[in-house]
Amino acid sequence: MEKPVIALAMGDPCGISPELTAKVVALDEIRKAARVVVVGDRRVFDDGMRIAGTKVSDLEFQDLKHLDPATVQRGVASKAGGTSALANYRHALRMAADGKADAVCFTPFNKQAMRMAEPTYDDEILFTSNVLGFKGLATEFNVLENLWNARVTSHIPLAEVSANLSVERIVAGLEITARALRAAGFNPPRIGVAALNPHAGDGGNFGREEIDIIEPAVKKAKAKGLPADGPYPADTVFVRAKAGQFDAVLTMFHDQGQIAMKLLGFDRGVTLLGGYPFPICTPAHGTAYDIAGKGVANVGAARAAVLLAAKMARTRERHLHSG
Amino acid sequence: MEKPVIALAMGDPCGISPELTAKVVALDEIRKAARVVVVGDRRVFDDGMRIAGTKVSDLEFQDLKHLDPATVQRGVASKAGGTSALANYRHALRMAADGKADAVCFTPFNKQAMRMAEPTYDDEILFTSNVLGFKGLATEFNVLENLWNARVTSHIPLAEVSANLSVERIVAGLEITARALRAAGFNPPRIGVAALNPHAGDGGNFGREEIDIIEPAVKKAKAKGLPADGPYPADTVFVRAKAGQFDAVLTMFHDQGQIAMKLLGFDRGVTLLGGYPFPICTPAHGTAYDIAGKGVANVGAARAAVLLAAKMARTRERHLHSG
Repeated sequence: MEKPVIALAMGDPCGISPELTAKVVALDEIRKAARVVVVGDRRVFDDGMRIAGTKVSDLEFQDLKHLDPATVQRGVASKAGGTSALANYRHALRMAADGKADAVCFTPFNKQAMRMAEPTYDDEILFTSNVLGFKGLATEFNVLENLWNARVTSHIPLAEVSANLSVERIVAGLEITARALRAAGFNPPRIGVAALNPHAGDGGNFGREEIDIIEPAVKKAKAKGLPADGPYPADTVFVRAKAGQFDAVLTMFHDQGQIAMKLLGFDRGVTLLGGYPFPICTPAHGTAYDIAGKGVANVGAARAAVLLAAKMARTRERHLHSG
Repeated sequence: MEKPVIALAMGDPCGISPELTAKVVALDEIRKAARVVVVGDRRVFDDGMRIAGTKVSDLEFQDLKHLDPATVQRGVASKAGGTSALANYRHALRMAADGKADAVCFTPFNKQAMRMAEPTYDDEILFTSNVLGFKGLATEFNVLENLWNARVTSHIPLAEVSANLSVERIVAGLEITARALRAAGFNPPRIGVAALNPHAGDGGNFGREEIDIIEPAVKKAKAKGLPADGPYPADTVFVRAKAGQFDAVLTMFHDQGQIAMKLLGFDRGVTLLGGYPFPICTPAHGTAYDIAGKGVANVGAARAAVLLAAKMARTRERHLHSG
């Protein structure tokens, strides 16, 4: 079986992205798992190799020749940095859309720099869907080792969460999560569904969303053959998942999952953009401006991101070939 | 300095309470820290000693002679069990209110049994305030080693949390938390305040409660000399607290704190009822009907509960004597 091709877009040049990229492509484990094509400016990458102290002789590189690293300041968000990161990512997405790559990865972006470059920049999901002309449901998964988290609502006020829940949205969330888990090799996947209210509403005493929305959604999902279990009180569902009962938890709102995942060490984890025709992975941590250029950035999450993308790309290939 | 007197009410007789009580009073560390007076039926306690394999010769005991253990079934919630637990607790509270004890502890209650005994039983706070005729603000603290959690709202629907937040309530929560922390020896205490919305509202993009309510409350609390810091995004405030930045986190709603505390192992922790004229502590775990009578129940949380009550009672004594 041929190795999957991963287009690895270099992220913000002013943070740890250059050295992370240089470190990750030099890892034996990565070279065994995938054919990585780095997308960026070669001068920025060479700078990263110098910082990281790594050397790769047979590197495949798409040199966009758009940023002289001497023109940006390390540790400071800049329009030039944001512009180059977006150009790299756009190029990598097009490679995958054109069949020249099986998956996309990127090293960390800086949101401030992205907004300097493109004032309408909202988040990676919206940007990705726009570049790909993708109209379907896409969502962000947080992946920490063997524990995944997906959410039904995300960047909205807490007071509006309840009004944004529906049977359809929860079932759609379960569908996209089950599909992504299967692509990552969980067969069959096990998904725990979080309740909304304290003590899962205590039989309707502290809210009725469990009775009116979440339970019917889990029932409907099960009837469709989806692996859904719950709703469980939000303060125990992650304890169960941590103990191995679930592969993924579907949460109803942003912090329900983020409180748990960050405590469990999600900064060492991977963010997966799911729902697209190919996997897109990035380390969960940020650009770490404070340690940029020191060569001390931990490559663990970037390594996990490329390995997850490679695994999902291989599964996808197998499905395409057998399908 | 004399040892503080702790009235230790025996909890539900059908769970692990009898054996826990028997174990905890036999610990050298407890006997050094406090004069414990057990409140319950002596036959139930003797049963607990038999199960636990412990022996205490000089035990102080308030024998209410109200429950023959042969009349209830181990591992099953019963009206008789709930009635006896409530009687023990009521007696212990009155001892403290009458100056015959400096603090109250109780081993686990079973809510179902409590409701069989007293259908209007809601929770420990309401029951305690009723018994004591206490009209002030009382609240539940979750204590895991050196990390405390208190909350502004508790058992209400998530959709109603926002409407239940106010500057006054948050300042009152900070006041009661600071007082309890000081009584437990944190001087000066450090309290982190959680935001409500994802990313603390992202400057008003995902909700305005941070700007309109929580920030003004923290500012007002600081002006009163209270040790408040925040608001911090809910998904990072516990990471900070775990790293030692805060002694306590004040959360805006139930699961914000419970998700974090349960993942951190709060079942090994202590629930403190705060705001009353004396400390009231209980292990955070439940009656564990499944392992009752086997003698395997871990005494760690009960031990921590009595030690915290003893410490707070000693501080209180010192304050009374010096005040």
